[in-house]
Amino acid sequence: MASRSSPTCIGLSNLPALSLGATVLAGGGGGDPRIGELMALKAICELGPVEVKPLDAFAADDLIMPCGMIGAPTVMVEKIPNGGEGRVIREAYERHFGRPVAAVMPFEMGGINGVLPVAWAAYAGLPLVDADFMGRAFPELQMLTPHLYGMSGSPAVITDERLQTIVFDTRDNIWLEKLVRNSVAALGGSACGGLYPMTVGQARGPAIPGTVTRAIRLGEATMHGGDDPIASIAEVAPVTRLGQGKVIDIERRTSGGFVRGSGVIEGLGADKGRLFRLEFQNENLVVLEDGEALATVPDIITLLDTHTGQGLVTEGVRYGQRIELVAFPGPDVWTSKEGLAAVGPRAFGYDFDFVSVVDRHA
Amino acid sequence: MASRSSPTCIGLSNLPALSLGATVLAGGGGGDPRIGELMALKAICELGPVEVKPLDAFAADDLIMPCGMIGAPTVMVEKIPNGGEGRVIREAYERHFGRPVAAVMPFEMGGINGVLPVAWAAYAGLPLVDADFMGRAFPELQMLTPHLYGMSGSPAVITDERLQTIVFDTRDNIWLEKLVRNSVAALGGSACGGLYPMTVGQARGPAIPGTVTRAIRLGEATMHGGDDPIASIAEVAPVTRLGQGKVIDIERRTSGGFVRGSGVIEGLGADKGRLFRLEFQNENLVVLEDGEALATVPDIITLLDTHTGQGLVTEGVRYGQRIELVAFPGPDVWTSKEGLAAVGPRAFGYDFDFVSVVDRHA
Repeated sequence: MASRSSPTCIGLSNLPALSLGATVLAGGGGGDPRIGELMALKAICELGPVEVKPLDAFAADDLIMPCGMIGAPTVMVEKIPNGGEGRVIREAYERHFGRPVAAVMPFEMGGINGVLPVAWAAYAGLPLVDADFMGRAFPELQMLTPHLYGMSGSPAVITDERLQTIVFDTRDNIWLEKLVRNSVAALGGSACGGLYPMTVGQARGPAIPGTVTRAIRLGEATMHGGDDPIASIAEVAPVTRLGQGKVIDIERRTSGGFVRGSGVIEGLGADKGRLFRLEFQNENLVVLEDGEALATVPDIITLLDTHTGQGLVTEGVRYGQRIELVAFPGPDVWTSKEGLAAVGPRAFGYDFDFVSVVDRHA
Repeated sequence: MASRSSPTCIGLSNLPALSLGATVLAGGGGGDPRIGELMALKAICELGPVEVKPLDAFAADDLIMPCGMIGAPTVMVEKIPNGGEGRVIREAYERHFGRPVAAVMPFEMGGINGVLPVAWAAYAGLPLVDADFMGRAFPELQMLTPHLYGMSGSPAVITDERLQTIVFDTRDNIWLEKLVRNSVAALGGSACGGLYPMTVGQARGPAIPGTVTRAIRLGEATMHGGDDPIASIAEVAPVTRLGQGKVIDIERRTSGGFVRGSGVIEGLGADKGRLFRLEFQNENLVVLEDGEALATVPDIITLLDTHTGQGLVTEGVRYGQRIELVAFPGPDVWTSKEGLAAVGPRAFGYDFDFVSVVDRHA
């Protein structure tokens, strides 16, 4: 959907667009990108732009490092990373595999995890792979595409702002989620990590290509959208308008390394009289109206600020905000039978099936 | 106190004595040795006796692996180890240090941790060091002698009965305790682990020598004590009788990877009319009478079965049991100023200072 005439690097001029686009693709999750953007900005100022390359540009045997932050986005905005986490994760993998990492890759394209790996790539002097393992953001470690391919997330490495490291090697990815989440909670609710380390050849199956450049295009559309940013976004991505309104209630609980909660949006303008209920676990999971789902995971449900058109992260949603509720079709891999088993509404405890936002609102 | 004319190996003939002696030295903790003894028995039957050697018998640069179980003894008796944990821990260290482990060492001399490393040494074809880092058992990871020497417990390796591994590298040993304990709880309340890996040269300061052979002597004294096992024990270790009685109340809570609780013992015989209160966190911490401490950590407080003279682990104490309350002086290293700061009564939240059981009952 994004043009494939990719920018070949991320520099000062397009970093803000990447940050904005990553927030739209995050579906409310992934964490506020502000801190990651500032870290990437500093790294680029010091070391120059970061090359962005498709998987095809690497040798099959090259080792890639999928990485990002893990934990509750509400915590990430207060528990500032050290800056050295990317190096510590990379060194742990290089020690484990006995050879250098060839490229950094965001494991999810959303929020802070769309931009923080740019900083780590800059410091490592490595290119960034134009791909990720979610095509959006999701809250749990078995919700990455390699899990559908039967690949292991181990060895996983996490490190905190004190640069303490924990390396996990588990029998399956459900155990990995349980043990990593538990340690992230013990570290204060968020940490940085590397997951599903693999070669470029292994990544060719599960990787969702072009998501870094897609986020940049989406961000540019938002920035240059003038009075109607959604129309501008529609030119680069198939966006569905679900409704517009005002946030009249928001409830968040941070526990066990997640932020969970819900919001209520009262319709305004053409949607006056309607009432939308939004539910989230780090990411937005469903939008309900009169008990009926208007949109569900794995479609990407995003709240856009009515005035700026910018995406909102769940921890940034406030009473009184005027928002547009929009949705984008989730990546195809997630709407397969196996994909829905991993990240469809039933995987999050809902008692209904996924219906594509495109079909539902056709 | 134990004779230094050490047995040079642990075989079928003296393994039961090691198991009994380790339970006496455990001070109620360390976990019921039964499973560890059976595992060591099987390993010795298959592979022959395990050599026991003092630190002096190794080269200064030899790598030793201090190891044992970590967690709540109440859980250990039900959550049976796999048997392969020692191998997995050893392989993790050999990968980390890039060279072979030269000897296995119990990190604590108490309960299951006195005998399980014998099984691991047998399977690895390695000798067992005649020493440990506690001279008894203690519940937390900063309660090992190398901590007093400013040495790091990292990298620490834990593995469960599924042979999943987690490797920790923390900024200090308090963080190590917090993070390892948290993961042990997530693994179900107990796990096997390696801590404070070091060379023989580094271990010469903190290691408490001769504790494996000391446990064997104590166990033999118990076994051959006839009608008065305490008199027999007194011939090999300076034991203080605190009182005798019947357990009339016992309360245990397993949470956060520990078992905590208390017991009440009603005096019998010469102690009729007295009432003893015992408090424990994995290990016995204090014995109180009329609000006054009769004995406290780091002295070793042990309940002996009146009839057999065998030591009791806290999880094995039952209503109605006839017991002798005894205490042994704790290793000297723990009664230093730094030692008491780490494992004295105040380190466990008590509002009184340590008084040696020898001085108090002189």
